[in-house]
Amino acid sequence: MKNREAVIEKMKSITGPDWVLTELEQTLGYLYDETEPLLRPQADETCLVVKPGTPEEIAAIMTYATESSVPVFPRGGGTGLCGAAIPTLPGIVLSLERLNKIVELDEDNLMITVEAGVTLEQLNAFLSKENDLFFPVHPGDEGAQVGGMAVENAGGVGAVKHGIMRNHIKGMEVVLPTGEVVMMGGKLLKNNMGYDLLHLMIGSEGTLGVVTKVILRLYPRLAYKGTLLISFETRQAAAKSVSQILKQGMVPLAMEYIDRSASQEAADHLGLTWPAEKGSVDLMLILEESTEDDLFDNTEKIVDICDANGAVDSLIAETGKEQKVILDIRSNVYTSFKEKAADAIDMAVPPAHFPAFLDELMQVVDQYGTQSPTVGHIGDGNIHNIILMVDGKLPDYFEEMRQAMYEVAIRFGGTVSAEHGTGRTRKAFMSLQFSPREIQIMQLVKRAFDPAMILNPGVFFDEPNGTENGLTGIH
Amino acid sequence: MKNREAVIEKMKSITGPDWVLTELEQTLGYLYDETEPLLRPQADETCLVVKPGTPEEIAAIMTYATESSVPVFPRGGGTGLCGAAIPTLPGIVLSLERLNKIVELDEDNLMITVEAGVTLEQLNAFLSKENDLFFPVHPGDEGAQVGGMAVENAGGVGAVKHGIMRNHIKGMEVVLPTGEVVMMGGKLLKNNMGYDLLHLMIGSEGTLGVVTKVILRLYPRLAYKGTLLISFETRQAAAKSVSQILKQGMVPLAMEYIDRSASQEAADHLGLTWPAEKGSVDLMLILEESTEDDLFDNTEKIVDICDANGAVDSLIAETGKEQKVILDIRSNVYTSFKEKAADAIDMAVPPAHFPAFLDELMQVVDQYGTQSPTVGHIGDGNIHNIILMVDGKLPDYFEEMRQAMYEVAIRFGGTVSAEHGTGRTRKAFMSLQFSPREIQIMQLVKRAFDPAMILNPGVFFDEPNGTENGLTGIH
Repeated sequence: MKNREAVIEKMKSITGPDWVLTELEQTLGYLYDETEPLLRPQADETCLVVKPGTPEEIAAIMTYATESSVPVFPRGGGTGLCGAAIPTLPGIVLSLERLNKIVELDEDNLMITVEAGVTLEQLNAFLSKENDLFFPVHPGDEGAQVGGMAVENAGGVGAVKHGIMRNHIKGMEVVLPTGEVVMMGGKLLKNNMGYDLLHLMIGSEGTLGVVTKVILRLYPRLAYKGTLLISFETRQAAAKSVSQILKQGMVPLAMEYIDRSASQEAADHLGLTWPAEKGSVDLMLILEESTEDDLFDNTEKIVDICDANGAVDSLIAETGKEQKVILDIRSNVYTSFKEKAADAIDMAVPPAHFPAFLDELMQVVDQYGTQSPTVGHIGDGNIHNIILMVDGKLPDYFEEMRQAMYEVAIRFGGTVSAEHGTGRTRKAFMSLQFSPREIQIMQLVKRAFDPAMILNPGVFFDEPNGTENGLTGIH
Repeated sequence: MKNREAVIEKMKSITGPDWVLTELEQTLGYLYDETEPLLRPQADETCLVVKPGTPEEIAAIMTYATESSVPVFPRGGGTGLCGAAIPTLPGIVLSLERLNKIVELDEDNLMITVEAGVTLEQLNAFLSKENDLFFPVHPGDEGAQVGGMAVENAGGVGAVKHGIMRNHIKGMEVVLPTGEVVMMGGKLLKNNMGYDLLHLMIGSEGTLGVVTKVILRLYPRLAYKGTLLISFETRQAAAKSVSQILKQGMVPLAMEYIDRSASQEAADHLGLTWPAEKGSVDLMLILEESTEDDLFDNTEKIVDICDANGAVDSLIAETGKEQKVILDIRSNVYTSFKEKAADAIDMAVPPAHFPAFLDELMQVVDQYGTQSPTVGHIGDGNIHNIILMVDGKLPDYFEEMRQAMYEVAIRFGGTVSAEHGTGRTRKAFMSLQFSPREIQIMQLVKRAFDPAMILNPGVFFDEPNGTENGLTGIH
């Protein structure tokens, strides 16, 4: 590890010695994210962890890294699910945790400016204390940092009504790999100068720049919330109801599809009882309206639509306690399967194709004589299904079955990743969705931002081959 | 013009001889767009016009153009306002007019697929005949083609509620400059694989690829519309009302600001009477709700907010005829000044800064002893003000005053172009908004898509210098 000491000294000179971690016992917590352990790549355990306090310090780190060909791996909350934050070469893990200030709440423009390391929990706590505005994106884990949510283009259950991160990010301060600090966008609702680098940065998974500040749009909080749980015998009936609800111009905050087997497993895990008994699949709908009348009217209309499509039961959770039971169980589906999940799949298809797609997907699963518990943001066409371990290991058929699943999605005009990202665990499937020329263009875009190819190497594309292309790393 | 005959023969071999125009009397109508005549660049009158009928023909043209270094200038409806469709080098004007089919209406997914040459008029006529869905973007001129609206990221009056083109484009078929036909995105609401080339293409003004198909999201038509015209003595009072309306969670379809001098000029031009007399500025608000009750309630709440901010008059246009008078006058502000307008400015600032920004802007105008009639999409912070001709010419102070105006916008965190685009007429101001490194990255992004630099040269950046960089053109 030729230069490690020199890199450590340089980092200490930039951030001060307290903010550079060099021993594995200190750095271990920074080497992985929430990606399934059987799938995630091996982290390089020689990586340092550096915790800069300002964009200027990050600029100094990036300038040095580009000049010295040292890989830099930006790290937010570590809640990602595609290995985009796992450092796979000797280098620097750059933690954004100290950039954790709410910079400005601008109530007149309905926008907030936060540093990249502010967590979703911190943002939501601030907003619920201060005013009547809220931020609608909720990817599930409130430990996520806003910068990470931005570069992963996070989604979540509220996307059917409010959309994903892309819809709410108006500006970002970014440190480029070559060390310049730039402001992309601003508090602007319309902006048509030049190429839109802001939108290129969103979803770029830490490969084009280090985000240091984010300007988010906020929305007036709607006062009246209700939760519906509606049961069906078939997923076709559930999906048809969703399509008809949306066509009538009603847009619930959330429209979730849940296999009964998944909800029961999650309920057992929590020691609770899933309140629906009839049927085999459920729709969980959360409504959010500005008046109690609207809430009542829309609930009635939705139940009527579902009844007309053969719903076998419907439950309107009126008390906070009833609502909490349903939400807790839904939120814990992933957790309850965590010990058994080889992979949690994240495909999306055109929303109305959801039932036909799921039918074909389950035919694939049946062929391998297994199960694949499924939940999904059905209003978005986004399905999460779990490939189960066998004896605590990847099953023999794992690669083959997963490939077959992805091919079904592509046939339906779908995508391998709807919201969890490409990162290091899904990059092998880029060629399923993109032509060689598109992938080449993406590589050239990467190089336009990052000529020394030092920022988050290994995401989207394979790592460069060490010194052969000038990437010396820390040897 | 060394190779012109050879290019003509090649084009005829691709599209058939009927679709290649070579004489100036035929091509003249394809050489300019709606950019102000005093500002637009001179078109090269040796350009051919080619009208391919399929993406495959376009692919053959692009392959040839890249191999032979012949500039290609894609052309939609020619309704643009930044000179992005004006061919400034000897080359090929590629008109999309024959790609004019509605490909598929997908009511279940609330999406429509259209060819790039479909006009907004054609799209709206199709939708109003066929069903209860509508497409919300309306940049003003229904001769605009959907492909052009996509690459210009068109906005318009409905953006405050429904957003701009970027919010509604889910997929695009694109012919790359190197000849490949690719599908970016799809009928997907979430899609996180790789860099988002679709969003890079949106707003790229015909420089990265030729759009041949667009997948647009549609929305249920809301049945109840109302128009309010509310008059104030000061723009501060008007702007404050807008901010408070939005904060209460009401989002009108349109929120327009109009100087009384502008509305009166437009009314005179049409031989109509502007219905407001008191005050000096007006807000025109269009509401669109799903029930008559909602329309009534929101109208009442909005009038109350405006009254509390000192509105001096409010008019609720209840009949179709009353609404039409107001909309016609507002729509004709630009037309009524067309003969007198040296430049129609298109800045945006953070919406709540609108009044302070406009105050400073008018101080600049006053310094030059002139007027600058102003309308604006006030809910978006997007202002259109007119720099008037003097004796039919650009005034002496034109460059200096315009530069000063733009600098005010930048000081308020604004942009030189909100929705009309950068094109050939605003590219000189890129450096006001972007650092040299950002402009360099944009140039490298351009080259990643278009290695021979043949597609719409002169937009965003200056034209390459002829043969010196391999661009031989048609000499």
